[in-house]
Amino acid sequence: MKIIIIGASGTIGKKVTDALNDRHEIITAGSKSGDLQLDITSSESIEAFYKKAGSFDALISTTGSGHFGPVSTMTPADFKKGIDSKLLGQVNLVLIGQKYINPNGSFTLTSGILSSDPVLYGANLSAVNGALNSFAIAAAIGLENGVRINAVSPGVVEDSPSYFEAFPGHIPVTMDRVVAGYLRSVLGAGTGQVIEIF
Amino acid sequence: MKIIIIGASGTIGKKVTDALNDRHEIITAGSKSGDLQLDITSSESIEAFYKKAGSFDALISTTGSGHFGPVSTMTPADFKKGIDSKLLGQVNLVLIGQKYINPNGSFTLTSGILSSDPVLYGANLSAVNGALNSFAIAAAIGLENGVRINAVSPGVVEDSPSYFEAFPGHIPVTMDRVVAGYLRSVLGAGTGQVIEIF
Repeated sequence: MKIIIIGASGTIGKKVTDALNDRHEIITAGSKSGDLQLDITSSESIEAFYKKAGSFDALISTTGSGHFGPVSTMTPADFKKGIDSKLLGQVNLVLIGQKYINPNGSFTLTSGILSSDPVLYGANLSAVNGALNSFAIAAAIGLENGVRINAVSPGVVEDSPSYFEAFPGHIPVTMDRVVAGYLRSVLGAGTGQVIEIF
Repeated sequence: MKIIIIGASGTIGKKVTDALNDRHEIITAGSKSGDLQLDITSSESIEAFYKKAGSFDALISTTGSGHFGPVSTMTPADFKKGIDSKLLGQVNLVLIGQKYINPNGSFTLTSGILSSDPVLYGANLSAVNGALNSFAIAAAIGLENGVRINAVSPGVVEDSPSYFEAFPGHIPVTMDRVVAGYLRSVLGAGTGQVIEIF
């Protein structure tokens, strides 16, 4: 299977890459590293990326950032950061990528626990993650040629200790469990699923 | 109570206005009609609107539109329409409005059933509604001075028969039930709730 991993150098992306690269043809991608570079906040960059990558069987996105800070001082510009990056970046990987993906291929996006279990500074990422989950559910019934889509929604992960303080009482999830969520999406047959890892 | 209703001339907004205007001071607002006009896609317009409206006890938003069409031909620009209008429009009413709302006031936003129960052409609105629900849940723990926020999530409503064909098998919800959801949010004491009317 030819699998594109966007955000392959990230905390989650590198473990997912490690789990897949012995049995599959992997194309790693990121904003600054990987086999190919792209800027997910630019439709033109995404389109150019797919033209270079060629047709593929699965795309895994473990990329995108958001704004983390108090609601009381959050501005429209702050909020827009996560919309442009983690939400529209990943959605546009699907909207544009559907022209390049092989029949019966799959898209796997990354949302996160904040959609349903908020923390004090996480309102932007809550909204972004909620949007991604609902997009995956909905796009699954509209994608053609048997193409699937799922969202993996991890809790705070054990490999990101710098986040622990912002997630009081959250029990970090093991990277093995997180990786398993991506494998279930890519190698399984489900579509329109929010794969919760928490 | 001084209550601002954005989208007061819409299908839902006018029934909500009717239900509240005998006992409360209502300021109706919309893009073209109402006591005051504003463009919810412009932060500057929202800020100017609040300066004119003055401090208030509750804001009800029944406004914002999205893109309705097949995923297979949906472009990033199509998808952005609902993000800029129904999502960021309503979120920015809160982010900016928190400076003008009275202590213990409330924000009531409108999402919709597509967040969890998609229809074929609704992927954009699914994402938008999912984001709004998660934002309400998360913003509730960050808003200060006792300010509350909820999202009312209606199914397809009986007063919008033009939508029925796009929602096969959905049983339209009565306007009385929909209005009750807004009353529960504004006159009740709950916060961080997604009030599902379906």
